[in-house]
Amino acid sequence: VNYFLKCVNCGTVYDPKEIMYTCPKCGPRLGTLEVVINEYPKHSSFDLKSKGIWAFSDLLPIDEDHYEVPLFIGNTPIYEKKALAKKLGLSDLWIKNDGRNPTGSYKDRATAMAITKAKALNFNTIYCASTGNAASSLAGLTAASGMKSIIFVPKTAPEAKITQLLVYGAIVMAVDGTYDEAFDLSTEIGNEFGWYSRNSAINPYLLEGKKTGAMEVVVQLDFKVPDFAIVSVGDGTVVSSIYKGFKDMKTIGLIDKIPKIIGVQAEGANAIVRTFESGHFDRPVDIDAHSIADSIAVGKPRDVLKACKWVKESGGYFVSVTDEEIGKAIIELARETGVFGEPAGAAAYAGLKKLAKDFQGKSAVIFVTGNGLKDIKSAMNFAGRVNYVKPDPKDVKSVLRQIGVIQEG
Amino acid sequence: VNYFLKCVNCGTVYDPKEIMYTCPKCGPRLGTLEVVINEYPKHSSFDLKSKGIWAFSDLLPIDEDHYEVPLFIGNTPIYEKKALAKKLGLSDLWIKNDGRNPTGSYKDRATAMAITKAKALNFNTIYCASTGNAASSLAGLTAASGMKSIIFVPKTAPEAKITQLLVYGAIVMAVDGTYDEAFDLSTEIGNEFGWYSRNSAINPYLLEGKKTGAMEVVVQLDFKVPDFAIVSVGDGTVVSSIYKGFKDMKTIGLIDKIPKIIGVQAEGANAIVRTFESGHFDRPVDIDAHSIADSIAVGKPRDVLKACKWVKESGGYFVSVTDEEIGKAIIELARETGVFGEPAGAAAYAGLKKLAKDFQGKSAVIFVTGNGLKDIKSAMNFAGRVNYVKPDPKDVKSVLRQIGVIQEG
Repeated sequence: VNYFLKCVNCGTVYDPKEIMYTCPKCGPRLGTLEVVINEYPKHSSFDLKSKGIWAFSDLLPIDEDHYEVPLFIGNTPIYEKKALAKKLGLSDLWIKNDGRNPTGSYKDRATAMAITKAKALNFNTIYCASTGNAASSLAGLTAASGMKSIIFVPKTAPEAKITQLLVYGAIVMAVDGTYDEAFDLSTEIGNEFGWYSRNSAINPYLLEGKKTGAMEVVVQLDFKVPDFAIVSVGDGTVVSSIYKGFKDMKTIGLIDKIPKIIGVQAEGANAIVRTFESGHFDRPVDIDAHSIADSIAVGKPRDVLKACKWVKESGGYFVSVTDEEIGKAIIELARETGVFGEPAGAAAYAGLKKLAKDFQGKSAVIFVTGNGLKDIKSAMNFAGRVNYVKPDPKDVKSVLRQIGVIQEG
Repeated sequence: VNYFLKCVNCGTVYDPKEIMYTCPKCGPRLGTLEVVINEYPKHSSFDLKSKGIWAFSDLLPIDEDHYEVPLFIGNTPIYEKKALAKKLGLSDLWIKNDGRNPTGSYKDRATAMAITKAKALNFNTIYCASTGNAASSLAGLTAASGMKSIIFVPKTAPEAKITQLLVYGAIVMAVDGTYDEAFDLSTEIGNEFGWYSRNSAINPYLLEGKKTGAMEVVVQLDFKVPDFAIVSVGDGTVVSSIYKGFKDMKTIGLIDKIPKIIGVQAEGANAIVRTFESGHFDRPVDIDAHSIADSIAVGKPRDVLKACKWVKESGGYFVSVTDEEIGKAIIELARETGVFGEPAGAAAYAGLKKLAKDFQGKSAVIFVTGNGLKDIKSAMNFAGRVNYVKPDPKDVKSVLRQIGVIQEG
């Protein structure tokens, strides 16, 4: 596939053979690059069920004989929830569960692209900084590909995600600092030692992998387009990728509109909400980030300009939800749909709940970006309690009576 | 589909309208029932990719207009691992990763059947005792189906599994005792209050759901049959179901042999190994079970007679592996294949490693029955360590030098 790179800030065009990461003129913060594909093939059938994300190979900036990670990525389930839609006043509601990816998150889509690129460029070591999911994804997919990974995480990352890293054999640097500090640190070290970067926003190909999530929705809904697409936002790359996926499908002529993209942030980490609302997309507002939704606890988002521009272009906007709302959303989503999302995954549902009154009669898809098993501690704070019993029927019946499950007995 | 029930011990045949669970003559321990389908349809194509386990609907004891849980179950990935096969001296090795099911384990196949049956019989409450996976599966799938679940687990079940239960809104009885005690307790209470039973071996339909795992392997390998099929064993129902799945495919004429089925138990919970080796399958050896592989930490297995008979019929056998071997298998499997299994899931790989010298030149499929995220504590004991660093490049470089990742810098 023929493509070039274009700076999101100044619009300068670069040859991908000459520039790997960001615009030299605008720098890494504003000058993230967009991959622009010269000509899209005209076709309308995608073998998503057999190939996962690689069904979209000729819509991706990769060679025909590209490397593919030997794990099944994408083609994650989408569920239509009629009763829940009705309850919320929507015409239709779909849940796209990306927690079903190999390492349990949306990030596997991006990591797969990074590995394809790294193989093409003969890199054997990939590094990243991550709040957890990009890291576990990189660790798992490099293991499956016989490559090495060096990973920088804030030392506060959830236990399950750190466990994944170690099990997969990654070299793990647990940084006594925030994700934002780990990010800058990793870029400095990665550059110095010449490892391939899987850092969000910096590597322009990650977004291309991520756009397959939106493309899958289009195929799975048989080219019907929801009015709204809702997803949680940390660095801003996933939300941008959702826009790009729908836009590409429109460019090819397979759909005739793009959903309004709604980005959901945690209130304690709503840097992009603030930047968006300021109207000055090129002056990112940085904050100290705090949220139970570790995957989006980002204070210095790396793809803020792109996220703001593209979300605005879609007619959408950003919204904040509290940790309390996120916690309740985890539980309600699980009980209503059987989909257990991690806090950042359920945040999209919290956003939908908050905005439902504005969405009356409209259709929406929400992206659950991570598996609930990745962060059980946060979920536990909002779930109910177990009933401790002795192995004695009398004790069990007494408890069942107390909690109102039985009357008699 | 027309079918009847047949006692595995005495061979008595029952009408499914008259008997729900076990043989009244032989009792629940020996008298577990086999579902015998009168006539299989003749066909050879299964729309596994679109339908998951329901691709096999007309090979299951359900009505044509049966209820299906609105979550995508089955069609889990199977990976061919050529390099690993060569390393172990096998002609071929496939990894079937059932950790990719909705609640992260093989048990979703069985729970789906239980719910279909419960709906047909107008039950709204289902109970089970479980070491964890059947429980989280029941909690998740009943939530998605708008039903209630009442669950008995040993209070020592891994945190992640208990979290799943509570998040999904199950009523959880954490029993101060073993799985075996929880099992007996649940049966007594469940019978008394007339809830539907999802207890392993007791409910004959669970095995029918589980057999779809083997059927999928047949379809995914394009009707090629491995020489060995290896799976971990607790109560003995999954291992029996693997045999049944292959046998059904042979009965229909789609394959001409059945793999030798190898059941792998934890050394501290090897009750079925002992019974099998005693030769007296109808005199189950009960033990005190201890293993890090909580899903198979069963001292009083409920499907021992069936498991022994059917594994023997396949030409296979049972083997024990130590907790140390299981722990190492988790790590090696993850690093070699990118598949992170829970201890019981990786136990199959530990069994393969132990037996590889006997399998030279042969082909094998291993079933990874649960997702590693379900029990991170056990994995952590065998994984490496994180490197704690300050957010300072000098500190990072010093650590990278110490652990031999870099020389210079």
